[in-house]
Amino acid sequence: MLHVSHRANSVLASPIRKFLPMVLDAEKKGIHVYKINVGDPDIFVPKEFWRGLKMYKEKTIGYAPSTGIREHTEAWVKYYKRIGIKLEPKNIIPTVGCAEAILLAMMAVADPGDEVIVFEPMYTSYKGFASMSNITLVPITLKIENNFSLPDESEIVKKITKRTKAIIVINPNNPTGSILSKKEMDMIVRIAVKHNLYIIADEAYREIVFSQKPTTFLSYINAKENIIVLDSISKKFSCPGTRIGSVASFNEDFMRAILKFAMVRLSAPTLEQYGAIPLLLNAPRLTKEVTKEYKKRRDIVYKGLKKIPGVFCTEPKGALYIIAKLPIANAEGLVEFLLKKFSYKNKTVLVTPAEDFYITKGLGRNEIRIAYVLNTKALKDAMDILQRGIRNFLM
Amino acid sequence: MLHVSHRANSVLASPIRKFLPMVLDAEKKGIHVYKINVGDPDIFVPKEFWRGLKMYKEKTIGYAPSTGIREHTEAWVKYYKRIGIKLEPKNIIPTVGCAEAILLAMMAVADPGDEVIVFEPMYTSYKGFASMSNITLVPITLKIENNFSLPDESEIVKKITKRTKAIIVINPNNPTGSILSKKEMDMIVRIAVKHNLYIIADEAYREIVFSQKPTTFLSYINAKENIIVLDSISKKFSCPGTRIGSVASFNEDFMRAILKFAMVRLSAPTLEQYGAIPLLLNAPRLTKEVTKEYKKRRDIVYKGLKKIPGVFCTEPKGALYIIAKLPIANAEGLVEFLLKKFSYKNKTVLVTPAEDFYITKGLGRNEIRIAYVLNTKALKDAMDILQRGIRNFLM
Repeated sequence: MLHVSHRANSVLASPIRKFLPMVLDAEKKGIHVYKINVGDPDIFVPKEFWRGLKMYKEKTIGYAPSTGIREHTEAWVKYYKRIGIKLEPKNIIPTVGCAEAILLAMMAVADPGDEVIVFEPMYTSYKGFASMSNITLVPITLKIENNFSLPDESEIVKKITKRTKAIIVINPNNPTGSILSKKEMDMIVRIAVKHNLYIIADEAYREIVFSQKPTTFLSYINAKENIIVLDSISKKFSCPGTRIGSVASFNEDFMRAILKFAMVRLSAPTLEQYGAIPLLLNAPRLTKEVTKEYKKRRDIVYKGLKKIPGVFCTEPKGALYIIAKLPIANAEGLVEFLLKKFSYKNKTVLVTPAEDFYITKGLGRNEIRIAYVLNTKALKDAMDILQRGIRNFLM
Repeated sequence: MLHVSHRANSVLASPIRKFLPMVLDAEKKGIHVYKINVGDPDIFVPKEFWRGLKMYKEKTIGYAPSTGIREHTEAWVKYYKRIGIKLEPKNIIPTVGCAEAILLAMMAVADPGDEVIVFEPMYTSYKGFASMSNITLVPITLKIENNFSLPDESEIVKKITKRTKAIIVINPNNPTGSILSKKEMDMIVRIAVKHNLYIIADEAYREIVFSQKPTTFLSYINAKENIIVLDSISKKFSCPGTRIGSVASFNEDFMRAILKFAMVRLSAPTLEQYGAIPLLLNAPRLTKEVTKEYKKRRDIVYKGLKKIPGVFCTEPKGALYIIAKLPIANAEGLVEFLLKKFSYKNKTVLVTPAEDFYITKGLGRNEIRIAYVLNTKALKDAMDILQRGIRNFLM
């Protein structure tokens, strides 16, 4: 009997798969399902992308250099320069989405059995990549009641062992929509420097912040060697299907390691690297537009949730997500109910049970995550339907 | 002091990087460098690709499903049906090039410390991916004098231990240009079934065969559970920069594992999945054209090498590579010489020292690999220059 690997077994199947047949069944019955479960926005990719794509005039489509197509990598450098960070091309390598950046960065800093500290709830792909690369994630639980703010320094330091290699932070955060305060960022940097740890900062949602300016850990010049920043064009320019991200660091040993990994897998897609150039060069204008739109949506979702009796949530400060605590023991049951047994005017709504965003077993069962990826009109309707659905479920 | 991981240290830097500054220096001096060192062809991508790309009419660029865009995955299914293999969409998942297929397949069958049998010389990325995923490659050395044919069954079986999970075969082969005989394929299948091993068959060059019909391990229906086939549109359709490959298997446990990994990294690029559809649907015609061209090139390179005194090589049967044994102790010295100290009519040539294609230390030092990725006229000139260069080097 052939077996798959333990690491394959340890990756959990995405909960989305479980609900997909239910969604299809509902749709077959003529029910419209508002999908606010994943971060796949309905916003048009800026026309600049198509303009960038047309810059590609070759009749061959060769491998891009593993270091990135020169103009593309330089566009990232210029993009970072605008936010005050002076990278050289050797400090940044384009990747196949932020996803690949996560895997390569984890593999570059940690060996099998090594530990990385994370804050839960967290973007689920980290769990999968940790399983694939045999790295142990050590979770520190953040509470919705505390606005998902970080605990005291001592609580974090307690988790550090001889095998700890890095702290992962997602800022702005998926799935919580929270952002780190200056004080929290300072603390993370202080801990990393003191305990000789890398900071892997996933800043894919950097510009999508509603009442602050975008920040980056790369601005901590006193911790240059410690900081690794992962980025992506997917969310800030509404084009996740292009699969273009990046990994940046002033740590030259680390970047050499990433380059070696990058050369093994050859290159990120050639055409999209061109498409991304005018996006990166026009980032301030384009990200301002998209953030304005997400702020409107945030308001609708937040207000919509606050109206539902028994629901607890705090106002998201960034990204395109919110977590809400429900007056329900098991959110998965609600999601199933909404898809299989409920509809209002032939419409229903798909949200994500938050359990999968936690590492610690049993947490998040009464929470859901909403991704505000629909236009304001659809979102208003979806929130109304969610309210009716919850009421019905509790009857 | 921060360190990178052991696995990062264990990945060798690509030898291409070492020669790049020398190439740039030569080019600065006005010397044209014929680059026949990597499998990045000069052949135009078929116009069908651009037609496929235009099928994409959306104004958003969302994530593709992890299982692939339906029409794209179905195009793979149709492509395989034409060569006699009846896959269902659940048996195949598109990947980010064959490169990602290699990494995911290795991770799905083996855990850190597990062993995989390979035949050296072999495509170098396997070494890198094995380091990244902490899998031990157990090499069986093939000899140029034996036309790189496989050893007896007993020689292979000898290498199997309790930790052996798979045998990797690249067919047609990069870097040797050899193809497996029916007898060799039968033997590999027999061993795999008997010893409960996966066969990871990298068939990216399937159609590029010069005197036989394309084959695939998927045709062994008696070993359905054992066989994993990696594929790519890069070489057969001359578009490596699109980063579209696939992994296929009738083993449902294995495909479930791959799907879980695929979901963690979300998706392969959306636009190129569309571009690939008409390529896959027109595979017989398009691959016939490209193979005809490579056959002409193969003849030029093979004849060119045979003319050089002291050089030994055998006629490649497929792919776009040839390995040649030189009357020189260290091929790396020759490559440096050609770039730094030699030119003929202001031209020189870049080939790859074959040492890096071996796992066993010390092997391949007197061998080079040539990728016949230039048009016939350029290739003739390059071979003439190589002959003159070798003569000069030996003087």
